[in-house]
Amino acid sequence: MPSYKAPVEDMMFLLRDVFRSDAVFAEMPAQTDTDCDTIESVLEEAGRFCSEILYPLNMTGDIEGCRLENGKVITPKGFAEAYKVFSEAGWGGLSASPDYGGQGLPRTVQILVDEMLSASNLSFGLFPGLTRGACETIEAHATEDLKNLYLPKMIAGIWTGAMALTESNAGSDLGLLKTSAKPRDDGSFTVTGTKIFISSGDHDMAENVIHLVLARLPDAPAGTKGISLFLCPKFLVSEEGTPGAPNNISVGALEHKMGIHAQPTCVMNYDGCQGWLVGAPHRGLAAMFTMMNAERLFVGVQGLGVADASYQTAVTYARERLQGRTPGATVTSPIIDHPDVRRMLLSMRAFTEAGRALTLFTALEMDREKFHPDPEIRRAATGLVALLTPVIKAALTDFGFEATVLGQQVLGGHGYIREWGQEQVVRDARIAMIYEGTNGIQAQDLVLRKLTLDDGQPVVRLFGLIRKTLDEAEPVPALASVRHAVQNALAHLESVTKRLTSGDLSSAEERNAAAVDYLRLFALTCFGWLWLRMAHAQTEAGISENGNKPAGKLATAQFFADRILPQTASLAVQIGAGSASVMAPDAGQF
Amino acid sequence: MPSYKAPVEDMMFLLRDVFRSDAVFAEMPAQTDTDCDTIESVLEEAGRFCSEILYPLNMTGDIEGCRLENGKVITPKGFAEAYKVFSEAGWGGLSASPDYGGQGLPRTVQILVDEMLSASNLSFGLFPGLTRGACETIEAHATEDLKNLYLPKMIAGIWTGAMALTESNAGSDLGLLKTSAKPRDDGSFTVTGTKIFISSGDHDMAENVIHLVLARLPDAPAGTKGISLFLCPKFLVSEEGTPGAPNNISVGALEHKMGIHAQPTCVMNYDGCQGWLVGAPHRGLAAMFTMMNAERLFVGVQGLGVADASYQTAVTYARERLQGRTPGATVTSPIIDHPDVRRMLLSMRAFTEAGRALTLFTALEMDREKFHPDPEIRRAATGLVALLTPVIKAALTDFGFEATVLGQQVLGGHGYIREWGQEQVVRDARIAMIYEGTNGIQAQDLVLRKLTLDDGQPVVRLFGLIRKTLDEAEPVPALASVRHAVQNALAHLESVTKRLTSGDLSSAEERNAAAVDYLRLFALTCFGWLWLRMAHAQTEAGISENGNKPAGKLATAQFFADRILPQTASLAVQIGAGSASVMAPDAGQF
Repeated sequence: MPSYKAPVEDMMFLLRDVFRSDAVFAEMPAQTDTDCDTIESVLEEAGRFCSEILYPLNMTGDIEGCRLENGKVITPKGFAEAYKVFSEAGWGGLSASPDYGGQGLPRTVQILVDEMLSASNLSFGLFPGLTRGACETIEAHATEDLKNLYLPKMIAGIWTGAMALTESNAGSDLGLLKTSAKPRDDGSFTVTGTKIFISSGDHDMAENVIHLVLARLPDAPAGTKGISLFLCPKFLVSEEGTPGAPNNISVGALEHKMGIHAQPTCVMNYDGCQGWLVGAPHRGLAAMFTMMNAERLFVGVQGLGVADASYQTAVTYARERLQGRTPGATVTSPIIDHPDVRRMLLSMRAFTEAGRALTLFTALEMDREKFHPDPEIRRAATGLVALLTPVIKAALTDFGFEATVLGQQVLGGHGYIREWGQEQVVRDARIAMIYEGTNGIQAQDLVLRKLTLDDGQPVVRLFGLIRKTLDEAEPVPALASVRHAVQNALAHLESVTKRLTSGDLSSAEERNAAAVDYLRLFALTCFGWLWLRMAHAQTEAGISENGNKPAGKLATAQFFADRILPQTASLAVQIGAGSASVMAPDAGQF
Repeated sequence: MPSYKAPVEDMMFLLRDVFRSDAVFAEMPAQTDTDCDTIESVLEEAGRFCSEILYPLNMTGDIEGCRLENGKVITPKGFAEAYKVFSEAGWGGLSASPDYGGQGLPRTVQILVDEMLSASNLSFGLFPGLTRGACETIEAHATEDLKNLYLPKMIAGIWTGAMALTESNAGSDLGLLKTSAKPRDDGSFTVTGTKIFISSGDHDMAENVIHLVLARLPDAPAGTKGISLFLCPKFLVSEEGTPGAPNNISVGALEHKMGIHAQPTCVMNYDGCQGWLVGAPHRGLAAMFTMMNAERLFVGVQGLGVADASYQTAVTYARERLQGRTPGATVTSPIIDHPDVRRMLLSMRAFTEAGRALTLFTALEMDREKFHPDPEIRRAATGLVALLTPVIKAALTDFGFEATVLGQQVLGGHGYIREWGQEQVVRDARIAMIYEGTNGIQAQDLVLRKLTLDDGQPVVRLFGLIRKTLDEAEPVPALASVRHAVQNALAHLESVTKRLTSGDLSSAEERNAAAVDYLRLFALTCFGWLWLRMAHAQTEAGISENGNKPAGKLATAQFFADRILPQTASLAVQIGAGSASVMAPDAGQF
């Protein structure tokens, strides 16, 4: 039956051999203690918690789901207890500021733990994930009073956070939102409106829920420039930090969703509740967006996590399941011996390991952005993070979903029923392509904003890093064919990028029509680059000094180069065809 | 809110203008009355039934699901009544033999109605679909007595059929099955064993369920050559055709599935029940396979149907939903105006309309195979049907599923919740990639058997038909760029086909590793071919005489050529890379 083992070995290979994180953190005064041995013990501890506590609750949570009773959300059996253990062990404050009780570990460690949480129990993982997002927003924008009152309890996991953005007529286009906020005499505000799709909107796992609500002040300009952010607690908090009277916040309904059934996605009514402004008036969207890179990286990692969970189950099943005979076999074969089953498993693995590498690369840049003393390095890191964030969010959830569909297919009929959990993983994985900005919106962000950010310097820098890896691999004969495939992919990407930024495809309409295919081309090229780096680190000629050599890296790199990376050529042709055929039909002709 | 309108106009365009079905049926003595006007009125009537009766039951059936009470399966509210109306109107016997009360209409009409049933209510459509499969098997292989006793009631929908093949250790590899059958003195048999994943295994919609069960006789050789087929009714039937005492058949459990919740997928126990041999001893698998082409075409059409249902909902939503502004717009735009949303909708449409065309092309060949007086034409048709069956089953369900995922994405968060039904369609669509032989198995069938069938004549014939369409399109300037794209795709397909059948990729291992990518390349090329035919039929230069010109055909053909067909180039490269990287890792390295 299925189980989950955290991929600590692969994570440590990336940190030690591929990205040499000891040297990276040694440059950051706040992180000089963060060596690989420390990280490894954190990861092993987190992995144990995820395998032993969270993974067994994943299927029972899906079956039981959340329910609304007398206006209160009840989470599935075991969730509240697990959250208590989780919080008491300090997992909620791993990367939070030590000023408010956090452990101050780098984003890199946080994101590796996030992968495990997502893999073992996506519904559960959203509770601390959203709380962290809320904390980061509060820390960056709220007054000292609000920070001191709310952050310690939230970081300790005693209270959780929720982000209330979407309304029924304002999703991708938040400029349309209608929730209002009116000033009170005491400096606080009265917030009124209804929000939908609010994850962790209400539950029984913590003593308070702190809502960050986007709303309009009376004098607000129309559109996105008139949105402000308000902190609205479920229970009003005394000056000593004790929750007291209920605020006027109620659960309108629980959504019936395809998956993440153990996560309460609520319609929330803010019925003239009391709220406090976070950040400047009319600057709420900007405040919310300060934590958006981190949130989107987190969502990308969700796609990665569920894909790995699905992969692990598919491998277990494929080893045990005897069916058919491979060419030349005299007895029934385990299906892992059939070439087409191997193709499916390798496709999943080629994605998860490259996706993990891209995540780690980006998380290290986020840590540089936050902790590095050199402003030039910080600036460069900011650009790379901004560029890669939409790629990670969209590509890791698109490919992650595709991987879970493959992981289900490996099990045949047994993948369609509850038994092995593979169908749940598909249903759960699907949400990550939608929330925190749909993947179409991410692609628009990449093509319309990020390619031209800072005069295109981040793109130039990234392509330079890819070329550096190509150069370093050149003397190694074992890498020649992978290297050649990556070189081709980069050529396609560079050529299309030029057309989109300054060539025949640079109009807003052309970029919009090209965006999703372009993001896929971009991501596949990055994956190819990182496969070449990983394969290089595993060869004798590689510069590894730690001897951590997970099996099959070069083989998987070769598979990726042979069987997946060629897609970049077609994507370049598809993008190159332009928007004409997309725009041709009248709306009435669909 | 969502609704479903049967695509009768598009179906009639294909019949009248693209495939000229009047001329086709005029050559078949048994079908000379089947003209387009007759078909159109049948389709309109079926479409009304599907829109008005079945579609409203689709979501309620999903929510309520089937349940097992005191050993009996209860189907969701409204299903039994709808099935009664359906049967009394004669829909169950549309293409069944008039000798046993059927209407004897061609497969072509049946498959168009099947698309509507699948689109409006996949769970429901399986009841008559499986009954038809059982009837066709009985008619082809059972004794006259069994035929006379069972077929009239099954064709009338008074009884339904179930196909009991799979066991827990015998799925793709039926040679491993263990259910036994022992002869009784009266010429019947005692059948003992447990089957899983039995669709329509038990229910409350008809007075009897007729199980066709694969089992082994005492003297059976091992493997697939020792399997016989038995007819086992839920209630034993008197000589007068009245159901009486229960047979020893019971429901072990209802499976908890990802989707098709209104379809009872059962674990069935045959506890020494009485059964009657159908066909020769040890030839049960062959008997079952006589109806496999039709069943697999039916499953392919399920993928097509659900994709069209999802498309219709996505278009409705995209027209109504206002969000964001397109370049130059001064007010909020309906999302159907955004290029990326159009890309998603056109991808769905480009698939469904080409998939429908491929289905109809194949169904017409099935009708030629059955009804045409010329044995040469029948033989040619048999080859084409055998070749295209795995392509249709796998490609229409793979692309169909991908289309439903796009249809869900168009709705953003509203696609992930129950409200518009888009998430149900994704869950329902997923099964069709698995049952009736997984899509991996279909690809093996194509590459290992069908390519070399009859010395490869069917493939040569199909490629010849594609070239004929290319030649006919050559003089038409408006078709030049679509034609060019199809020509490229065909060149890739022909080159790879040669390598797989007689070249460097012709070993069993290479073919197995190439199969899924090859089937996709094959299907895309067929879709391209049919888009060219459809576009041609819509141009002034086309040979249409009926003037039925659905909007947007040429535009969609161009979109397909520009934005999807280029994938064939990459697929050819991927296949060409061979199996080495697929086979490289040890089983322990996964």
